Amino acid sequence: MAELKNDRYLRALLKQPVDQTPVWMMRQAGRYLPEYRELRAKAGDFMSLCRDADFACEVTLQPLRRYDLDAAILFSDILTIPDAMGLGLRFETGEGPVFDRPITCLRDVEKIGIPDPEDELGYVMNAVRTIRKGLNGDVPLIGFSGSPWTLATYMIEGGTSKAFTKIKKMAFAEPKTLHLLLDKLADSVISYLNAQVAAGAQSLMIFDTWGGILSPRDYREFSLRYMAKIVDGLTRENEGRSVPVTLFTKNGGQWIEEIAATGCDAVGLDWTIDISDAKARVGDKVALQGNMDPSMLYASPERIGQEVQHILEQYGHDNTGHVFNLGHGIHLDVPPENAGAFIKAVNELSRPFHK
Amino acid sequence: MAELKNDRYLRALLKQPVDQTPVWMMRQAGRYLPEYRELRAKAGDFMSLCRDADFACEVTLQPLRRYDLDAAILFSDILTIPDAMGLGLRFETGEGPVFDRPITCLRDVEKIGIPDPEDELGYVMNAVRTIRKGLNGDVPLIGFSGSPWTLATYMIEGGTSKAFTKIKKMAFAEPKTLHLLLDKLADSVISYLNAQVAAGAQSLMIFDTWGGILSPRDYREFSLRYMAKIVDGLTRENEGRSVPVTLFTKNGGQWIEEIAATGCDAVGLDWTIDISDAKARVGDKVALQGNMDPSMLYASPERIGQEVQHILEQYGHDNTGHVFNLGHGIHLDVPPENAGAFIKAVNELSRPFHK
Repeated sequence: MAELKNDRYLRALLKQPVDQTPVWMMRQAGRYLPEYRELRAKAGDFMSLCRDADFACEVTLQPLRRYDLDAAILFSDILTIPDAMGLGLRFETGEGPVFDRPITCLRDVEKIGIPDPEDELGYVMNAVRTIRKGLNGDVPLIGFSGSPWTLATYMIEGGTSKAFTKIKKMAFAEPKTLHLLLDKLADSVISYLNAQVAAGAQSLMIFDTWGGILSPRDYREFSLRYMAKIVDGLTRENEGRSVPVTLFTKNGGQWIEEIAATGCDAVGLDWTIDISDAKARVGDKVALQGNMDPSMLYASPERIGQEVQHILEQYGHDNTGHVFNLGHGIHLDVPPENAGAFIKAVNELSRPFHK
Repeated sequence: MAELKNDRYLRALLKQPVDQTPVWMMRQAGRYLPEYRELRAKAGDFMSLCRDADFACEVTLQPLRRYDLDAAILFSDILTIPDAMGLGLRFETGEGPVFDRPITCLRDVEKIGIPDPEDELGYVMNAVRTIRKGLNGDVPLIGFSGSPWTLATYMIEGGTSKAFTKIKKMAFAEPKTLHLLLDKLADSVISYLNAQVAAGAQSLMIFDTWGGILSPRDYREFSLRYMAKIVDGLTRENEGRSVPVTLFTKNGGQWIEEIAATGCDAVGLDWTIDISDAKARVGDKVALQGNMDPSMLYASPERIGQEVQHILEQYGHDNTGHVFNLGHGIHLDVPPENAGAFIKAVNELSRPFHK
């Protein structure tokens, strides 16, 4: 493997000194980029794209050609595991992901196996290997998965949801069934992420998009517990370097101390919490990733720069351990030049915070 | 007016002793009740129903005939004010509320006037008067409004939204335009709620359904500030009694101290915060309303009873100042007997907490 030229992102996650705050954007490879839309128009359906290692590599690299980013993230979907479990994933226009065979009862859960990461999910590992080659050591590659709770919401609701009534019904009326599913998902995620590391992922992130719809007790029981199990089971060193792990629960600002206590290296923050408060609460335990409102990218470059400065100041001059990011994925209708203004602002404005 | 027979709800909001914890449910008059659906099927479109005082009275009273509730809430919609401002409200099947003429620019905001509560909104005041008569003093009547920020989201997005990109674009790129709109909305809400009190509402609630999608700074600037202005402008006494005011920001658990500091009487909580933590944080400043996950009503009566007991214990034996409720509106597919089990559990299990 080519030697890593820019390791700011990995160093910041481990709270080691860096010369400027590393930055990347959730969903940085995606629809807001015209070059992505162009390639996408020529290709087939969304999952076929994820299955094509060359396509996945090309779109992973696209934002890196435009912007001075400090990390690349595997182009894939969070629902690859449920798809590999045989639930029949489709993407309906305007409707998002749909499962043809959602989970409805204990019998459905019992039938599910742990997907083999080099068999049913081998296409993801091929993509990781291809992207690592394509990156040629420029920046580290982030591998990722959805959290067990988040995957389970899609598997039980049959797709996206507003009120999550089916999974909550199961959580309150048949908790054992749900726990069996979450445990199988945790084992699957461990095997999936470890295979990504073996294939070349240099850092891992777990997206708990829907943990924030739970009460504190239910979050601990149905989401955090399984993320902690995953953290315990992950390969944390490879190629002679640490493989840092970031946990991100959207709307999880109230629970960051407990998330930090799982043993992860970093906690991702959305924009509904002040990063200064978050830092005071987690202390030196973990690095923090975040946390600009993605909608700020609709404003002018000047306003974007002011917001970057504001967040850098909030994080403070004891600057180790901050990875700049949006608080959620970039919106698909953001002008690419505004994303550029954001990245540039972090690169330039963060240097005085690293003396 | 008939003398009030059951004032537990009003007393609890003022942190006065009661014999048992008062309980009502957000959206208690609504689609989960077969008698509501029956009446609704015979009648016209949703806004015509809201405009019919006899219909509004009948559906407001329906849940009180089934359950031992401690309050009634005006049957109406949160979007009556924007509708009265001339934005052309429609309800599309499966799509929710839609405005034919959403707000897009400063010019649109400048054209808007403050609706006269006894003219354009006179139908709401007629409903309040009719319901007060229909209640005959059994329980107090709650009047309500959406918060300025929440109303503005619908007015600018043109309906419901997922990412709220249009209003955030305005907040970050044209904050003055948005502030002008929010200020007009705050004035409108003050006039609207004071008219509800004059017509007979005995308590007021402001629903800030979408304040929780903002960063802490933006929440203060665009939502809380205008709710505080409203609290300052409200009639707080009528018919020789206090008219308590409750503020409810969904996903606002991180900001309850600041909400409490507005001068409101009570803070509504969703289920993403422990009510014990909330109580420790706000101290004696305000009463608290909440906070069972509405999805718990899918579970068995036994499980519902356990959850009620758990929340009562969390609130603790220093029990004054708790109004039991769901953390959000009741789901439309909840079995009515489960709602009954919930109300009964609060009535029975809460007595030992009030000695």
